[in-house]
Amino acid sequence: MVLDPPVARPLVGRLAVIGIGLIGSSILHAVRTRRLAGSTVATDAAPEVLARAKELGLADEIAPDVAAAVKDADLVILCVPVGAIGEVAAVIAPHLKPGATVSDVGSVKGAVLAALKAHLPEGVHIVPAHPVAGTEYSGPDAGFATLFKNRWSILTPPEDADPEAVRMVSDLWAAMGANVEVMAADHHDLVLAITSHVPHLIAYNIVGTAADLETVTQSEVIKYSAGGFRDFTRIAASDPTMWRDIFLNNREAVIEVLGRFTEDLIALQRAIRWNEGDTLFELFTRTRAIRRSIIELGQETAAPDFGREHD
Amino acid sequence: MVLDPPVARPLVGRLAVIGIGLIGSSILHAVRTRRLAGSTVATDAAPEVLARAKELGLADEIAPDVAAAVKDADLVILCVPVGAIGEVAAVIAPHLKPGATVSDVGSVKGAVLAALKAHLPEGVHIVPAHPVAGTEYSGPDAGFATLFKNRWSILTPPEDADPEAVRMVSDLWAAMGANVEVMAADHHDLVLAITSHVPHLIAYNIVGTAADLETVTQSEVIKYSAGGFRDFTRIAASDPTMWRDIFLNNREAVIEVLGRFTEDLIALQRAIRWNEGDTLFELFTRTRAIRRSIIELGQETAAPDFGREHD
Repeated sequence: MVLDPPVARPLVGRLAVIGIGLIGSSILHAVRTRRLAGSTVATDAAPEVLARAKELGLADEIAPDVAAAVKDADLVILCVPVGAIGEVAAVIAPHLKPGATVSDVGSVKGAVLAALKAHLPEGVHIVPAHPVAGTEYSGPDAGFATLFKNRWSILTPPEDADPEAVRMVSDLWAAMGANVEVMAADHHDLVLAITSHVPHLIAYNIVGTAADLETVTQSEVIKYSAGGFRDFTRIAASDPTMWRDIFLNNREAVIEVLGRFTEDLIALQRAIRWNEGDTLFELFTRTRAIRRSIIELGQETAAPDFGREHD
Repeated sequence: MVLDPPVARPLVGRLAVIGIGLIGSSILHAVRTRRLAGSTVATDAAPEVLARAKELGLADEIAPDVAAAVKDADLVILCVPVGAIGEVAAVIAPHLKPGATVSDVGSVKGAVLAALKAHLPEGVHIVPAHPVAGTEYSGPDAGFATLFKNRWSILTPPEDADPEAVRMVSDLWAAMGANVEVMAADHHDLVLAITSHVPHLIAYNIVGTAADLETVTQSEVIKYSAGGFRDFTRIAASDPTMWRDIFLNNREAVIEVLGRFTEDLIALQRAIRWNEGDTLFELFTRTRAIRRSIIELGQETAAPDFGREHD
């Protein structure tokens, strides 16, 4: 379901952002550029990130801790690694305003929904979200206001979610430039396993395999990486903590999709061994069409080499 | 070994390019822009490519067939799929000028060297080459003069190669902007298996796996591809014939490296299943360093998202 674009601003009274990394800082940029919240407050567990967020002036107020940050907030967005959601929810629970809405940006939704439900009190609305957007960079300096433009943000509210809270979160993402979809948490986790989690895992894996080969030096891997390898290193440079948590919290779907991937790969390997050129040609032709569709939908550039410079 | 840059121009008398795809047309652009050959002639097996090459004015002369193209040529560069090299070599053999040099641009070198040796006559010099450069686009319109700039071109001359012929091919690549390395054909094939061939195979494979899942629709795969999947679709959009031939002609090295990849992937899957977060974190940290090295060597952009536009 695609929701209508929002009409009134500001959409949120006081917005608290917990965790000032790539996504948290991008939300702050997008919200403040477009005046989507009455006021903004942000905090982070790392003192150096707090200091840097102050220097950059990322929010109206930089709070020293999560308890202070969520006090009086109408909407709290947790932008922390998925594995830290439960712990943060437990700490903020007693400090939340009655009627406040708690959301997040985690790449896994089943585990997040369960953790929020377990820790947040009655009367606080839960509307988990996942903006499918990012770059390979992390930290408070990495964010920018247009990160979510023409990307999808997936909401996975519980079945008994408050419709007004869902509407507020949805409107906020739409106003930040995203297309909003609502789906069940378990379906989200399966969709993301194939579109994001397993791709990251195999990218990390091929980079690791290359580094560990005894017969090819690391310097050769680096020099000749323009043959294809370098494309994989981008997502294999993503934040290690975030990705560790994603795999451990979406174990079932990741292992299911990985099983399919490996089965297909072994079939391809067999086709190579037995000289079955037609099998290879048929697959290699089919995959071109999928890229064309992604470009047509505006999710990818048509420029050669992603538009990398050639001069 | 890195050879010195060339000094005198034109480096080649008459240059014949056989096959006017991405690489063939890029060579013609680079050679003509920089006046590296006295004259250029090109041909292609496909009548529509010949016609298009004429329209684009890609060479001084567009020859109707390979026999006509190689007549009087001092250097012949075969820019055809690796699987077609033997056949083309057999056809051109009786038409080559004594003392001519034959090179190629194939991504596999052991099989190419064997095919050239089998078909070319005594007195013709063989200097196989592989420019590690390309985009996901194919055909005579896809080429551009700077494709090889700051990329590596690997020469794999036979042990008894003529030093002057090797020098001419090397100088030509250097003059087109490439860094030149010389190595044995079998080592080349192993290096490229990890830096190019297996990355392409797993990219093709993940795109195929995604298309075939019953539980996630193709429309969902396309919409949420910005989560990582879309990075893989670029190289999975490469030319199907070219890539079928590469896998069938570098079977041994590809299967060897694939075996390592799968072994490592299954170990990662096991770490996820058994909640071994430290194993994941350690790998995910190590892989960041490799991307940094690739960027430092100028083989990759440091711009977020490969520099894709975000507005």
